[in-house]
Amino acid sequence: MPTNSLPVAGLTPAPAIGFDGRGLAATSFAHLREATADGVGILRPSYGPGEQTALEIVKGIAEQYGLATAWDGAANLVITLAGLQPDMPFVLCGSHLDAVPQGGNYDGSAGVMAGLVCLARMRAEGVTPPRTLKLIALRGEESAWFNKPYLGSSALFGQLTEQDLALKNQATGQTLADCMRECGADISRISQCEKLIEPGSIAAYFELHIEQGPVMVARGFPVAVVTGIRGNIRHRSVRCVGEAGHSGAVPRWLRRDAVFATADLISRLDEHWRVLLERGLDLVVTTGIIATNATEHAMSRIPGEVEFSFEVRSQSLETLEAFYHLMRTECRNIGKARNVEFQFDRRLDSAPARMDGTLVERLRTLSKQLGLPTETIPSGAGHDASIFANMGIPSAMIFIRNENGSHNPREAMDLDDFMKGTELLYHALLETK
Amino acid sequence: MPTNSLPVAGLTPAPAIGFDGRGLAATSFAHLREATADGVGILRPSYGPGEQTALEIVKGIAEQYGLATAWDGAANLVITLAGLQPDMPFVLCGSHLDAVPQGGNYDGSAGVMAGLVCLARMRAEGVTPPRTLKLIALRGEESAWFNKPYLGSSALFGQLTEQDLALKNQATGQTLADCMRECGADISRISQCEKLIEPGSIAAYFELHIEQGPVMVARGFPVAVVTGIRGNIRHRSVRCVGEAGHSGAVPRWLRRDAVFATADLISRLDEHWRVLLERGLDLVVTTGIIATNATEHAMSRIPGEVEFSFEVRSQSLETLEAFYHLMRTECRNIGKARNVEFQFDRRLDSAPARMDGTLVERLRTLSKQLGLPTETIPSGAGHDASIFANMGIPSAMIFIRNENGSHNPREAMDLDDFMKGTELLYHALLETK
Repeated sequence: MPTNSLPVAGLTPAPAIGFDGRGLAATSFAHLREATADGVGILRPSYGPGEQTALEIVKGIAEQYGLATAWDGAANLVITLAGLQPDMPFVLCGSHLDAVPQGGNYDGSAGVMAGLVCLARMRAEGVTPPRTLKLIALRGEESAWFNKPYLGSSALFGQLTEQDLALKNQATGQTLADCMRECGADISRISQCEKLIEPGSIAAYFELHIEQGPVMVARGFPVAVVTGIRGNIRHRSVRCVGEAGHSGAVPRWLRRDAVFATADLISRLDEHWRVLLERGLDLVVTTGIIATNATEHAMSRIPGEVEFSFEVRSQSLETLEAFYHLMRTECRNIGKARNVEFQFDRRLDSAPARMDGTLVERLRTLSKQLGLPTETIPSGAGHDASIFANMGIPSAMIFIRNENGSHNPREAMDLDDFMKGTELLYHALLETK
Repeated sequence: MPTNSLPVAGLTPAPAIGFDGRGLAATSFAHLREATADGVGILRPSYGPGEQTALEIVKGIAEQYGLATAWDGAANLVITLAGLQPDMPFVLCGSHLDAVPQGGNYDGSAGVMAGLVCLARMRAEGVTPPRTLKLIALRGEESAWFNKPYLGSSALFGQLTEQDLALKNQATGQTLADCMRECGADISRISQCEKLIEPGSIAAYFELHIEQGPVMVARGFPVAVVTGIRGNIRHRSVRCVGEAGHSGAVPRWLRRDAVFATADLISRLDEHWRVLLERGLDLVVTTGIIATNATEHAMSRIPGEVEFSFEVRSQSLETLEAFYHLMRTECRNIGKARNVEFQFDRRLDSAPARMDGTLVERLRTLSKQLGLPTETIPSGAGHDASIFANMGIPSAMIFIRNENGSHNPREAMDLDDFMKGTELLYHALLETK
């Protein structure tokens, strides 16, 4: 009978007693997919029915393996394996089970399933961990349903405001408070911003997740250790205002062309970006939206205005602020040089989250011992791990190689890669003392 | 009693016999404005009622001054003052009397009124020109009504196709053929593409027009001589196609960002433009329209495509072709460097028209003698003069300073400037032998 252990150098090999982690994962992923398929992708609305289905499937599997299950005050599922020191802070792993509309099967569920395979294996193999281990299957991580992410984890730490609870499901119009209540969450405590869990009771938080970008495929890493979760500074709308005019009749020196000015800005930011990357900074810059004013633009009219979005992301708050400052400075420079004005709507901030340095190093050491790459990678997308990290809980993430990005049904995670990451998580959970 | 002559060096001063050209112009412009006002601007649809009103006002004034009037085969108004050599090709001046919706009072009418003042003055002052002089008040110059410009002049040279005649008035839906017929045009000959006038019978064509750009205001020229009418090469739609992706999760080296690629293109074209202007080439470059795909763009999504328009204008066909080639080359360079593709719709061409070198020099010499600036300027907008020039008729244009551009009710031509240009036209008509 095959074991799912990788060749391990310097670690006790997992005994071959017949626990089939790979088979468990394959069966469970297939079960999740079937139970929540919507014809195109996966339908698991945050604090909604498909998410509930997924949670119950996970609960059922855990119970088959003799693991204790419970619902926490925010209606997240918690699976527990008692350790040798039950009074010490416990080690938590987990991820989320909701998905964006027409989402993929692995975004979120991979982390829950990895934790489930680890705890089930310990149970099946009779391994008692030094600390109590808990797996949390979180709700409401995706912002697609309520325009706000990390609902299940934020609720645990008293971080949902009255306004948040009044947010409406984009599909049904039902409020978040109602949806949470229907799922069994303790709305009276949540609406008081009570902490439902003491951060000090959690010794560490581990989250395994598929990579949502193309880096690991491009560089050939099945598994990588995440160094931090990028924060961002954004403007939904920057307007460059110049002056419209006859495209044939106004020479270059008299133009106040909003499109040429904006192209100049983007090109300058691109060059700054290139140089800052060479200096080793973590940075991505995006203008996802750009448009001239459709009520007055024309092929033969010098564009008098153009509207665009701006986003900079980095793991470093200093880099975010420095690049934002650079952008505003370039807007002023271009404004003077081209006689245009850049007008900004409200600045939106999202703080970056650093993964715990000790845990990152531990994961890299374990990776080396397991024959896996020791490469690190930033997370560009947000994760519940940022909520735990920003509550002061030492947190770490493992990324699994995945093709075609996430938030679409073409997500493609290889089960071999998943099992490598799960093996890494297994040892990390046991090593956290 | 004041005369309207400017100080003239080396030209016979106009005798002071009481002809008040300035008064005639002021009264006539006011009459035109009142008769065709629509509450916001001026309403003179091509081959339509307001244009007819304007033509009849001009016809009435001409007849008051004893000038012969007639309608040609395209229903343009022709006013004649016989010269000393009636069998020689005649000298023609003119412009148009239609206007865009909510247009200004001077775009077109300035040139007709200038010719009228010149011929009326000769008549009033008993001056017989060497060649017969004709003033043509053209119809249908603006493309706003039938999506095609230069209708009245094109009809004269058999250049309206069956498709053109089937074009519909954008406001009423009536066909061009019907509108022309109602105005008295000889549709049977026009639809056969017959020439209604022999190009060889026209010795020269002069057109005075307000400047539609800001150059003369900025440089302080009341009058300028036009060197040529810019042609253009255009694409209504260029699509830059890259790959969409999560803005946080895809690093710079793996991006195929359509907006950054297009900004790069525009910035490179801007720099080429700047350098080519320093080399003395005539060139304007415009991207009047740009937009990411609204069905899929988002602030946090790397834009996978962007669509934009491209236009280059120049008086020189060589410059147009060279810049177009440069643009296509840069698209290929950027395509390779950034892993995107630029896709082009049909290329649209409009040929430039050169003004006649001898006439341009004559106008500059006369300007010097009249104490006016001898500056030249390209025409970025199109004019009927391009139709005459491209029929091989020596053609020239005089621009009058005008604030706030054209095609809007805020056109602002100073009557003093107009009279300076009219004085220049007067001498040019008499000097063309």
